Order: sequence, then structure tokens, then C-alpha cells
Amino acid sequence: MNIEERLLAGDKRACARLISMLENNDREAFELVKKLYYKSKGAYVIGITGSPGSGKSTLTDKLTKVLRKANKKVGIIAIDPTSPFSGGAILGDRIRMNDLSLDKDVFIRSMGTRGSLGGISKATRGAVRVLDIFGCDYIFIETVGVGQSEIDIVKTADTVVMVMVPNMGDDIQAIKAGTMEIADVFAINKSDLDGADKTKLELEMNLDLNEEKSYRPPVLKVAAGKNQGIEELIMSIMKHKRYLEESGELKNRRIRNNKQELIELTQDELIRIIMEKAVEKDLLDKLAKEVTEKNLDPYTAKDTIVNLIRS
Amino acid sequence: MNIEERLLAGDKRACARLISMLENNDREAFELVKKLYYKSKGAYVIGITGSPGSGKSTLTDKLTKVLRKANKKVGIIAIDPTSPFSGGAILGDRIRMNDLSLDKDVFIRSMGTRGSLGGISKATRGAVRVLDIFGCDYIFIETVGVGQSEIDIVKTADTVVMVMVPNMGDDIQAIKAGTMEIADVFAINKSDLDGADKTKLELEMNLDLNEEKSYRPPVLKVAAGKNQGIEELIMSIMKHKRYLEESGELKNRRIRNNKQELIELTQDELIRIIMEKAVEKDLLDKLAKEVTEKNLDPYTAKDTIVNLIRS
Repeated sequence: MNIEERLLAGDKRACARLISMLENNDREAFELVKKLYYKSKGAYVIGITGSPGSGKSTLTDKLTKVLRKANKKVGIIAIDPTSPFSGGAILGDRIRMNDLSLDKDVFIRSMGTRGSLGGISKATRGAVRVLDIFGCDYIFIETVGVGQSEIDIVKTADTVVMVMVPNMGDDIQAIKAGTMEIADVFAINKSDLDGADKTKLELEMNLDLNEEKSYRPPVLKVAAGKNQGIEELIMSIMKHKRYLEESGELKNRRIRNNKQELIELTQDELIRIIMEKAVEKDLLDKLAKEVTEKNLDPYTAKDTIVNLIRS
Repeated sequence: MNIEERLLAGDKRACARLISMLENNDREAFELVKKLYYKSKGAYVIGITGSPGSGKSTLTDKLTKVLRKANKKVGIIAIDPTSPFSGGAILGDRIRMNDLSLDKDVFIRSMGTRGSLGGISKATRGAVRVLDIFGCDYIFIETVGVGQSEIDIVKTADTVVMVMVPNMGDDIQAIKAGTMEIADVFAINKSDLDGADKTKLELEMNLDLNEEKSYRPPVLKVAAGKNQGIEELIMSIMKHKRYLEESGELKNRRIRNNKQELIELTQDELIRIIMEKAVEKDLLDKLAKEVTEKNLDPYTAKDTIVNLIRS
């Protein structure tokens, strides 16, 4: 069987292969997605964001198990900050290997934030496309919500769940501030710890100050490790899903996301063309050297390359 | 006097104005930088990175004071994560206002991570160009080192100082892991606190594992608030500067950075052209809608735009 047949037959290895091919800008992969795109059902994408140690992975796994009970096919894209310290993340994957990954209807993909051609955003969007074709009903994108590129990724989800823990330091709060505004549901994990009520109160007060939002994000206390509050969290996600569907906002979000993807894909292709054309003629290195030696200013150098691409 | 004359006469407001004009893609600003680029001396750029609360701003200020004693002209570009919680950062600026900003040879610019056209990377590089023309001998780029875009910015510095504090939580360590590898000097700030020696030891052990680096980053204990270790830190930075100059690595780094800037500038201009052409014809919205309704796959949509730009 070829990769297309294997993919449509539910072969997870074919799915993994196609995702890798897309990441590597394999022409065959693009052709395959082009061909199969019309078959995809439009999986519902849930972003799970929160700082390292907040228990995102455990929470995602528990949510997945609930969805599996309802016989839903689930994809998980876990974005790990590429890190010499990421022992935790690796361990997380290993635990999953023993458990969910044996399920033929759960597909798990880990991605490093570096090393993927064209960036993590393109790689993640590509993986979502493939998992959609693969027949997933729900796709989780799990990411540490720090840094602009990470925030941009999680923005592509239909529903964004922000995972917090009680008594987070001010540092983390400040770092994560950028994701506060994009959260549709707040989950205070490890809420069996002291301080969960205080964190909930602080969040609610913060939300009171942001009343212009058309949908007020609920704040839930959960304890993923103890399997507490998981059903309620799923219900909150489904409630937000219904809101998006009924208000027409879902389609708007997806149009907005597809527009953003179009810009990124175009940008990516243009960069490829820049690199090809410029590398071919050794131009990029030559211009950079000229700029460094102050024989040429950076903006005139840029004009040279832009003209080359457009000619 | 026009802006050019005022800039060359050392008028800080003209400098601030030109940076804003560049951020807003003002054609006149580009022409001015093109014209004056050849006059710039090639300021030495020092990246200061570290998590919120590590005392980056205080440290930068103390380093600036030492450089001022040697009669050096200094620029500071402070990148703040745009944040509803960033009370700390605002306060930091206010303290500076009362102190360094009165010095005519110290220029301070705060930038938010969002809202700047073309992204923070382009804005920062533009500001460095202007400050170089303005005659700065040293330029600090101060940024929270989380997220890929933030790491990309600090990579443009000649010397990268990573500021840590004793007993940082594992969370922060993991987040910051990506910047560990690009640090040329480590400064353990607030080292009058317990645990500074332990943190130093951990860092040194980590560096032992990374022996392939041609320059081993020194690990210094400082206490910026108490003015301890500042001279030693400057000496470490200068030692790294000498190493870069003598090994020829400085020119290599700058060529590499200029190359990256060229790519980003070109990308930015092409995106501007995409938006102009596509918005003009309402094309981007139309294509995104078609993709959402599954009448068109994303990759064919992208080809349509790429062809438009190249025609």
C-alpha cells in the first residue's frame, strides 16, 4: 500500500511519515495534502497552554481519555521547548508511550521548537492538516505559552485552555501575561494544593476588568493527577465550542487562521525562493559582507534581493 | 535644523524620532539611514538577557555608569514583554528617567514586544542602526530571554550576558534553556542571597558538559543593587570583545547577523507587497474563506499569492 492508502486505512506510521515529509518541504507531501484536503472533516482544535510543570501533559491525557470513551479519534501535538534541561518533557512522553500511544485512535506527536524548517508554526499547522485528513475528531496542541511564536501557535486553536497552578510566582505570571487574553477556558490544575481558591479569585477579578470580551472564560479547578474536574473541563470546552458554532464565530476564527496560514506559507515560500536565488549566486553572503564592511547600507542591500526575486 | 542635522548634533529627541519613523516604515527614515550609514562607527552591542525579576535593568544601568566614567556614549534598548502585569517594567523605566536619562550621552528606548510593525526584531535592528549613527560606542539590548523571537533578537548582540539569580525554580530554568547556549558571559545577580555558590557550581558543571565551545563563558557573581562585581563584569565583557576581535570572530558574527537582517528585511518587504497586492484585490480574504469552506486547499491558495507577487 502507498502512503495515501495507509493513511486513509488508519495507519499511524503513515500519518507520522506524512507529517515529517511536510516538515521537510517534500513536494510529494504537499501534493498528497492538496489531494486529500477535501476529505477532511474539520477537526476541532483545542490549545492547551501553561508553564512547564503546570501539568499540561497529564491534563491533555485525561481529556483524551474522556473523548476516547465517547469514541472520538484524538490527535495530540506536543510542542517542547528544545532544551538541554527538558528531562521532564522526555519523561512525559515515555509515560504516554506506555498508555495512550497503544490506542490506535490516539496519535501523539512531539515537536521541538527549533530545528524544524520554516519554523514551528508551519510544522504545527501542517500536522493539524494531516491529522484532520487522518480522521481525528479532536486535535490538542499542547505548548508552553511563552514567547510570541508560541502564542501565535496556540492562537490557531478553536478553543484555548490555559492551565495554571495555585501560587504561581509573579515571574511566571508576567511571562504568561500575553496568553491571558487569548484563553477561552482557565483550568487551575493541582487545585488540591493550598491557594487554588485565591488563584481562582485573582483570575476572576482580572476577568472582571476585561468585560469587553463577548465570551467570559470560565475558571475551573481541576486536579488532573487525581482525575478531578476533568468531566467539568470537557463540558466547559464543549460549551465554548457550541458558543463558537452558534454565533458563527467558529467560521470567523478559522477564516482568520487560514488567512494567517496563507501569509506564513507565502512568506515561507518566498524565503525559499530568496535563499535559492541568492545562494545560487552567492549573493546573500556577498551583500552581508559588504554591509558589514560599510560599503553598502542594509536597506539598499535588501532592495537588491527584492528586485532579484521579482524579476 | 532638520532631523539629520539634529541627530548628528547629538539631539536625543531626533534620535527617538528617527527610530519611531523606521518602525513605521517611513520612507524618509530609510533614506536617511541609507545616507548616514557610512558614518557609523560600528558600536559594540551587548545583549542582556534574563527572566523578569533577575535585575537586568539595574545591572544594565550600573554597567552604563561604568562606561560613562570612561566617557563612552551608551544606548539602551529595553524590550518589555507587552503585558497587563508589567508594573515592574514601567517602574524600572521611571527610576531610569530620574537618573541616566538626564545624561545627554545615554539614550534609553523601551519597546513593547507587540504592536511594532514588522515585529520586534526589525524594530530592534533599526534602533541599533540609528544609535550607531547617533555615535553610541556601546549599545545594550535588554530582553527577557524567553521565546524564539526573543532569543533571535539577543543573538544579534556581539556579547550576550545572561543574568541569573540564585535558586531559580526549575520552571524558569527550563524556559530559559534556549538562551543558555548563546550566553558568552553568565552573571549571577543578587549573589548576596543564599545559594549563589550552588547556582555557580551548577552552571560550571553544565558548561563542563559543553566543552566544544571555543570560548568558555565565565560565570560571575554580582549584586547590581549593591554595586558589587560590576567592574569585574565589564572586564569579562571586554575580554570577550577582545577575543572576538583578535580571532576574527567579531566580523564573522556581524556578517552572519547582517545576513539574517537582510533575510528579515527582504521577507518584511515581500509581505508588505503581498498585503498590498492581495488586499487591493481582496484576494487574501477570499482565498482564506475558500480554504475554510474546503473549496480550495491551503497550498494551492498559497501558490496563487506567490504567483501574484512574482508577476
